[in-house]
Amino acid sequence: MKTKATITSLASLRDRLREFSQERDWDQYHTPKNLSMALIGEAAELVEHFQWVEGSQSHLLEEKTRHSVEEELADILIYLVRISDKLDVDLYQAVERKLEINERKYPAEKVRGSAKKYTEYVD
Amino acid sequence: MKTKATITSLASLRDRLREFSQERDWDQYHTPKNLSMALIGEAAELVEHFQWVEGSQSHLLEEKTRHSVEEELADILIYLVRISDKLDVDLYQAVERKLEINERKYPAEKVRGSAKKYTEYVD
Amino acid sequence: MKTKATITSLASLRDRLREFSQERDWDQYHTPKNLSMALIGEAAELVEHFQWVEGSQSHLLEEKTRHSVEEELADILIYLVRISDKLDVDLYQAVERKLEINERKYPAEKVRGSAKKYTEYVD
Amino acid sequence: MKTKATITSLASLRDRLREFSQERDWDQYHTPKNLSMALIGEAAELVEHFQWVEGSQSHLLEEKTRHSVEEELADILIYLVRISDKLDVDLYQAVERKLEINERKYPAEKVRGSAKKYTEYVD
Repeated sequence: MKTKATITSLASLRDRLREFSQERDWDQYHTPKNLSMALIGEAAELVEHFQWVEGSQSHLLEEKTRHSVEEELADILIYLVRISDKLDVDLYQAVERKLEINERKYPAEKVRGSAKKYTEYVD
Repeated sequence: MKTKATITSLASLRDRLREFSQERDWDQYHTPKNLSMALIGEAAELVEHFQWVEGSQSHLLEEKTRHSVEEELADILIYLVRISDKLDVDLYQAVERKLEINERKYPAEKVRGSAKKYTEYVD
Repeated sequence: MKTKATITSLASLRDRLREFSQERDWDQYHTPKNLSMALIGEAAELVEHFQWVEGSQSHLLEEKTRHSVEEELADILIYLVRISDKLDVDLYQAVERKLEINERKYPAEKVRGSAKKYTEYVD
Repeated sequence: MKTKATITSLASLRDRLREFSQERDWDQYHTPKNLSMALIGEAAELVEHFQWVEGSQSHLLEEKTRHSVEEELADILIYLVRISDKLDVDLYQAVERKLEINERKYPAEKVRGSAKKYTEYVD
């Protein structure tokens, strides 16, 4: 069994996931529809860790919980990169565009000084 | 208004999001609890695009849908990087560990040749 | 230990849940925010059962899976009734209003005969 | 257009939804898989209303938000009843069984007096 390449970028993660899936003949299950369901499942496992704690305490994780949270975060990234690969989406380009939209939509000088609630600004 | 740095890595995205949030005084809202809720909201918007289409057709997106899907994927990455920053989690390390677990849990030679259903292997 | 009343209506379920929570001093955790997180967690467990199967096969459940699916459906109803109680929402009134909206929004004669895709009608 | 029956029970809601779907020829889209995706989409819209507010304030809804929240709760119940119908699940029986499990799992006298955290008791 050869040594796998270390993950240092979204591109290397994408390649590793392609290889993982091909070796197991799992591409047939990895439709964007199914992957979106798997992704939200992992997001829900993340949410579960925080559902009964106060927001202000939610960064304080016991060792065991932290370990689980890291796994959920990893799973989300895995499915996110996998679905982006299947749809041929460049995540950084998509993020760049979205940040530009957000920067126009919520101008810092206006949002900061405003009495309007945060909830009215952000969807 | 200064030019923002282009996003080319998770680290540069993390920094850009820190800056974005600080400029708006939004860190107070960005508890892991709240961010996990925002993340699952974006995951659900992704799911919605695929809920009435066949899995086998779900990679075929009309132009307008593709644009929206790219935005949801970007939003998921944004919240994922943001919550990881707040919890001081190194996403690539977490992914590396998770992939090693998966590779042991689903050995290619066993999974590929097995008559057991995929659903019994994967959670 | 006294015998609990059988659930035959949303009102009797609401009362049973109130009692359950009060006996355990759990009302303090049951904010609408927390309950909405718990509800989506159960919805995600439901989704997980269907994520790798074909839609056309998704009504065919093995005994063990059927048992789990019934538990998730029960949990969703439990949290739905609980959050509605906390927000003083009459679910049947809310449903009645929503159905009237849907009936106006998707007129049967127009939707049925139309070549427009289902996905364009339904959010 | 005939007058629709008022919703006063899960059974009457189930029948109204059957009729609604048949009139539009939508049963073909209503696989358990697709309905589970639609349900979690509505759950996420519910979550969104609460994501940036404090838990302790989350029962205080402005008129417009309350209206939306009621719609999401209605939509969740609609999809829950619809998927239960498709899978031939009796929701009240399922809930009854789940409550009995919970009552055994979290005995009031033990849970109430315990110093153990709520989070260790509840999944």
